[in-house]
Amino acid sequence: MADPVSALQAILGSKGWLSGADAEPYQRDWLNRYGVAPLGVARPANTAEVAALVLACREAGVAVIPQGGNTGLCGGAVAGQPNAVIVSLSRMTAIGEPDLDSGSIAVEAGVVLAALHEALEPHGLMFPMHLGAEGSARIGGLIGTNAGGSHAFRYGMMQDLVLGLEVVMPDGTVWDGLRAVQKDNAGYQLRKLFCGSEGTLGIVTRAILRLYPTPRQQASALLVMSDFAGAVWFGAFLRGEAGEFLAGLEFFSDVGLGLALKHVPDLAYQLETRGDVYLLVELTSGSQRVPLDDILASALEWGMEHGLVVDGALATSGAQRAQFWRLREEQPEGQRLEGEQLKHDISVPPGAIARFIEAGAELCHDILPGTRINPFGHLGDGNIHYNLSPPEGRADFDGKAGAFADALSALATEMGGSFAAEHGLGRAKIAMADRNRGPVERELMARLKNALDPSGTMNPGVLVRLSQ
Amino acid sequence: MADPVSALQAILGSKGWLSGADAEPYQRDWLNRYGVAPLGVARPANTAEVAALVLACREAGVAVIPQGGNTGLCGGAVAGQPNAVIVSLSRMTAIGEPDLDSGSIAVEAGVVLAALHEALEPHGLMFPMHLGAEGSARIGGLIGTNAGGSHAFRYGMMQDLVLGLEVVMPDGTVWDGLRAVQKDNAGYQLRKLFCGSEGTLGIVTRAILRLYPTPRQQASALLVMSDFAGAVWFGAFLRGEAGEFLAGLEFFSDVGLGLALKHVPDLAYQLETRGDVYLLVELTSGSQRVPLDDILASALEWGMEHGLVVDGALATSGAQRAQFWRLREEQPEGQRLEGEQLKHDISVPPGAIARFIEAGAELCHDILPGTRINPFGHLGDGNIHYNLSPPEGRADFDGKAGAFADALSALATEMGGSFAAEHGLGRAKIAMADRNRGPVERELMARLKNALDPSGTMNPGVLVRLSQ
Repeated sequence: MADPVSALQAILGSKGWLSGADAEPYQRDWLNRYGVAPLGVARPANTAEVAALVLACREAGVAVIPQGGNTGLCGGAVAGQPNAVIVSLSRMTAIGEPDLDSGSIAVEAGVVLAALHEALEPHGLMFPMHLGAEGSARIGGLIGTNAGGSHAFRYGMMQDLVLGLEVVMPDGTVWDGLRAVQKDNAGYQLRKLFCGSEGTLGIVTRAILRLYPTPRQQASALLVMSDFAGAVWFGAFLRGEAGEFLAGLEFFSDVGLGLALKHVPDLAYQLETRGDVYLLVELTSGSQRVPLDDILASALEWGMEHGLVVDGALATSGAQRAQFWRLREEQPEGQRLEGEQLKHDISVPPGAIARFIEAGAELCHDILPGTRINPFGHLGDGNIHYNLSPPEGRADFDGKAGAFADALSALATEMGGSFAAEHGLGRAKIAMADRNRGPVERELMARLKNALDPSGTMNPGVLVRLSQ
Repeated sequence: MADPVSALQAILGSKGWLSGADAEPYQRDWLNRYGVAPLGVARPANTAEVAALVLACREAGVAVIPQGGNTGLCGGAVAGQPNAVIVSLSRMTAIGEPDLDSGSIAVEAGVVLAALHEALEPHGLMFPMHLGAEGSARIGGLIGTNAGGSHAFRYGMMQDLVLGLEVVMPDGTVWDGLRAVQKDNAGYQLRKLFCGSEGTLGIVTRAILRLYPTPRQQASALLVMSDFAGAVWFGAFLRGEAGEFLAGLEFFSDVGLGLALKHVPDLAYQLETRGDVYLLVELTSGSQRVPLDDILASALEWGMEHGLVVDGALATSGAQRAQFWRLREEQPEGQRLEGEQLKHDISVPPGAIARFIEAGAELCHDILPGTRINPFGHLGDGNIHYNLSPPEGRADFDGKAGAFADALSALATEMGGSFAAEHGLGRAKIAMADRNRGPVERELMARLKNALDPSGTMNPGVLVRLSQ
């Protein structure tokens, strides 16, 4: 094809094609670390246009870069070279009627997560995916990155919440896997394979998602814990004692609390005691007949009797609950405002969190003494956002970012965990994956990529490095 | 290789190689419909032996047929031609110490499901997979078929319960994916891809499984429902009212109850009323503070007030609960003892179950008037075991088995469901898959098979037909 751009303009029309200044907002990733100017940004109106543009790009040798809300942290949704087209489904935002008897809903991939939450509110059913970026993140991007978030240990990650998918393949054909059933063993689980494939195997255009009943009551508490070991022990106790109800089991450190209180306006810490680590515990139930407050209160008593909980408060109002959650949610912002930072997205078996925190601190202080360590995240599934700020008085990490990343990813791997827990690999972590995962695993991934995208059209340079 | 058998004997030793009469018990599938005599049965003692035998078979052009407990219903675990070796991991039955703080356990793939349940009993954690064959089914087979069972709608299928895997690939290399974390987005979700791959991509040798707290109380009820529509409505009500607690929502029909009472010794039906359809409802909780009986009792009252529940009883003892479950569990046996039968493993969106039952009956009676329809299964996830017995006075289906299968699978597909819900495709349903699924989907599966097993060594003729 002589001129791919005019071909794409013909397919997409004026509304569907952005270039020049209009395309700039799509060009760089959220952390502003990756992305070169593409030929343009395609904004197709429907699946047929997605299929046509993918085929046109493939024939013209142009790379196709699917982009959701562009809230990813690994640079997986922007172009690595200029001969590329970013595809945004921001015009495909239809939300179907929820199937209340079945607990499912069909949506287009451009739907923003918060918009889905809002659309479901009147129906008594919810989509149980919650994360900081939910105001911008789109369903397609959440599927592509297999998002997890703060409720994953109870409700699962995207791969656990996707029933059916429609995907435009790299050759422009459309896979119709839009089945609204949990049990479908008619062959390989394609619907799972596309979750977390980061746009390297195709473009998810529509999905059928699993819904859960909206809780009718909740109980929340903010706790000051003795230490990380105590937090882990208490978390295991809670899983047994309040397993069905446990909807949030978030943790953050005193370093992070300090940074958040220092930088984030109108943020208040209401307890008297400070400690090394804090837990945000939330129980929810669909039944009004469960004594949720009593269950949480007696769990707290147990924790205090055993010296695990140093101080704590149950939220007595929705406003107070929101304040508790804000302390956790402002962790990234507080650290960002402090200046230079390094993010690491780690998971370890939940029981090993305290050991990781301890061993990780030793590694970090060996690399750069005084480095301020700010771990926060999801105690229930062992997902630690292990973020660093430079030592007091330093503005940077003395060029040691790579050393931190290598040491911490090796430690997580050694402990049976992951160095890419919920943010994926994108462009940022391919080399790290090559170092931390065996050749068999990397070879398997390369084979899958080559099998489904032999022309290398879809998001080249993301997730897997091809030895070609 | 001149003589593959002697090479395999050298790898496996005398304990590890069965032939002749010793191999016969492995030869045919559970329904005795598939399986020719293989060269022999390999019973490796460890992963290294599995890898060596797979490599030897590949080099000799011998097919490798992984077999678990051989309880599958689609002929996926027996040989389709004599130049094959059945691989049983029945000597690899090690169960690791459960990680109580993390809620996970490492097992070898030969472990029998019931043995895992038993091993976990003292620990207060359980593996929430339950199905009729649990006394024989092995973890590797359950993973290979992505088993579902009666608790799947609450706890998930095998793909939702597998954290990490070790898999011997068709080229004899070993993929070490033994990570004990839910969140691992470091590339494609290989652990999910192998679930349901029916031994066509490799042999699962070890797994790390997710565990859940053992419930501390339960409440069970047997209900006579007005009709299927009422059962669906009541099921949706229960999901909202007792969502966290709902651990069993099983249904069976009056046809099936009649057959079970007629043929199965010591089976008792204790209610006064009979109806078209029965529900077995079970609520469980990890907390002693939940008024589980009250919650179930008031749900029943609600159902009676709304004319959905005609009659019902709460189990007042463990013995009575067991009797209730037996009525459901003996459904297949009662029908088997009646004589000739046809099994169909259907799923539809739960809200569509009643419509499927109605439309399915019309189709069946058009094909062969008087056909006795015995649907039973899992209301919560829409999984219907839609089994048929010939009309009263007939011993067979007048050669119309294919017509029933085609009509019912097309109906399930049309309704957004699956014709292979939890039993998989095996050898039995490949042609059906070719008819019911689009060419893009079948092509994708063929590409995955060719990418991971280019030599076609693993379980040829199962799950996917290669156009070569």
